[in-house]
Amino acid sequence: MTRNPSSSPWDELPIRDELRGKSPYGAPQLDVPVRLNTNENPYPLPEPLVQRIAERVTEAARDLNRYPDRDAVELRTELARYLSRTGGHEVTKDQVWAANGSNEVIQQLLQTFGGPGRSAIGFEPSYSMHGLISRGTGTEWISGPRNDDFTIDVEAAKKAIAERKPDVVFICSPNNPTGTAVAAETVLALYEAAQAAKADTAGALVVIDEAYGEFSHRSSLLPLIEGRRNLVVSRTMSKAFGAAGLRLGYLAADSAVVDAVQLVRLPYHLSSVTQATALAALEHTDTLLKYVEQLKTERDRIVDELRAIGCEVVDSDANFVQFGRFDDQHAAWQAILDQGVLVRDNGVPGWLRVTAGTPAENDAFLDAVRAIMKETDA
Amino acid sequence: MTRNPSSSPWDELPIRDELRGKSPYGAPQLDVPVRLNTNENPYPLPEPLVQRIAERVTEAARDLNRYPDRDAVELRTELARYLSRTGGHEVTKDQVWAANGSNEVIQQLLQTFGGPGRSAIGFEPSYSMHGLISRGTGTEWISGPRNDDFTIDVEAAKKAIAERKPDVVFICSPNNPTGTAVAAETVLALYEAAQAAKADTAGALVVIDEAYGEFSHRSSLLPLIEGRRNLVVSRTMSKAFGAAGLRLGYLAADSAVVDAVQLVRLPYHLSSVTQATALAALEHTDTLLKYVEQLKTERDRIVDELRAIGCEVVDSDANFVQFGRFDDQHAAWQAILDQGVLVRDNGVPGWLRVTAGTPAENDAFLDAVRAIMKETDA
Repeated sequence: MTRNPSSSPWDELPIRDELRGKSPYGAPQLDVPVRLNTNENPYPLPEPLVQRIAERVTEAARDLNRYPDRDAVELRTELARYLSRTGGHEVTKDQVWAANGSNEVIQQLLQTFGGPGRSAIGFEPSYSMHGLISRGTGTEWISGPRNDDFTIDVEAAKKAIAERKPDVVFICSPNNPTGTAVAAETVLALYEAAQAAKADTAGALVVIDEAYGEFSHRSSLLPLIEGRRNLVVSRTMSKAFGAAGLRLGYLAADSAVVDAVQLVRLPYHLSSVTQATALAALEHTDTLLKYVEQLKTERDRIVDELRAIGCEVVDSDANFVQFGRFDDQHAAWQAILDQGVLVRDNGVPGWLRVTAGTPAENDAFLDAVRAIMKETDA
Repeated sequence: MTRNPSSSPWDELPIRDELRGKSPYGAPQLDVPVRLNTNENPYPLPEPLVQRIAERVTEAARDLNRYPDRDAVELRTELARYLSRTGGHEVTKDQVWAANGSNEVIQQLLQTFGGPGRSAIGFEPSYSMHGLISRGTGTEWISGPRNDDFTIDVEAAKKAIAERKPDVVFICSPNNPTGTAVAAETVLALYEAAQAAKADTAGALVVIDEAYGEFSHRSSLLPLIEGRRNLVVSRTMSKAFGAAGLRLGYLAADSAVVDAVQLVRLPYHLSSVTQATALAALEHTDTLLKYVEQLKTERDRIVDELRAIGCEVVDSDANFVQFGRFDDQHAAWQAILDQGVLVRDNGVPGWLRVTAGTPAENDAFLDAVRAIMKETDA
């Protein structure tokens, strides 16, 4: 077999057929003055927290020849305390599980509750990793509908659930990339529909992805887990805790769900340095949540100013804003990039997504949009 | 549905059928004076390295609000340099990939080359995670044979490969839990058999798990990757680098294999603190490899003294020793534990496994074995 010069480097390897022709997930990492494309928190950790991380990691490094606490008990205890304080619902460490980013949390849930012969549904556009991790775990992916304003079309969603009987239902709130929060009654309607559709077995798992929960105008959907054994809320320290580099995601649910993911989690999956760093960050919660408040103010300013410029803007409960509409959103993305500002083209026709940065970064972004709006028909 | 008090907590959840009745993997974590059960390196990292980790993590923490380098280029460059120096074969960063422990490396390989409708073979007893991660990724697991002395039965293995046509072949060398190194000619024979069995497609992936490679009397099997596109060597920093708490596994292979796993790896899977800590440890390679030499000496002493006591001992190329034979190895495990020494019962009938610890720990272990040998028929 000769190598076709236009083919992928792995074409001659015995990879799975459904991976052929696919590309790795990931936003372009471009070297640009203002990067507002991956929903990172623009504020570096405060220096006292950096020093505390160094202290706790030093301590962990002195024991690094030993495996980490496989059950991450101290970390889960502190995450439970944080959720109990801020989520409107008391949870214990037995109801909390942590992994390397919420992606790994989702992967573990799909390995346990999805997988070959099973299916998962999400309502798109949404966080594209839900579909990608479903496929990566052999779970059939079902793309559910949204309304034109990017809210979930509840009747259509219930119909899709009743017909397709998915084993796992993803509800992203606030939704990435649109910023749309989901009402508790919508979650409950879909939860009931999912349980009814799978009433012959043990029901379906419903995962509320609250990666951006701290930025919402609404309170967390966490209290809904009470009395609902198949409901999971997933979270991350990447955004609200300004720790995208840490890769710490977690979930809260009935303790039986936490017990169940133990069957598929890789043993010692969470390193001692990750646990130590996360614990240090949790000590500084109050400071970090003040940054969240600043970002919410900036997010609201971006919405207002974009509307004043003449853009269409989706109401946002996240640390990012979806704006448009552009006849050709990729051309608009390039035009904004030409002004030195990197935003995200998530492939939603007519729309782009911008992350709330520092006030100066946001000004640069708004100036870039003003400049391109003068030149083009938005 | 009422909860059966004798059932697992997850019995009423909609988990996958094949997970029902299973237990999570993991050695008992008991609080015992001498723990020689998980093949940890007994030597804490030297203090200058601890300080260097603190420095590099402090630097990483100042940028923690940003996602990590998704491609871990600096780390893969340094791992490639280490392998080139010590593995008898020059490799580049494009041939190296890293993840959260070699378990995640193996999971990524199985997601890419195994999965639903495919199968993997290993020669047991061997590292039980090969089978567990196969099942976790929906890959059918085939248990291949070994000789009574725990070497691979090459003819039987070739026959099993020809008949079952696995998509992935695991060869653990040195083998866990037996300590047995595999000869290069054995690897080559199985590699050829695996390619021949799957000649109608693109062949089969052969994974040499060299987690304990640095402790071997033999040189690394790394040079075998040259010209063999479907051959992978996996490694870890857990043992030789004394960094089980770090969770850093890696592989070396044709760069096309590295490209292919990008299709399934979770984006930004490797945190900034993990990358920083691993890079610090790699700066101290020479010091850490001196500890490896000490452990090899101790390992050889354990083998000699156990034989002098009257135990049967498998030749070991690892940092652990399999010894026996016991009529009831679990009773022997308990008797040794009663002396304050925790070893591992891997479920190999008649045999137990002990990790080489510090000289004092090994003395305590040898005393415990002497004591039980006086009391029981070994």
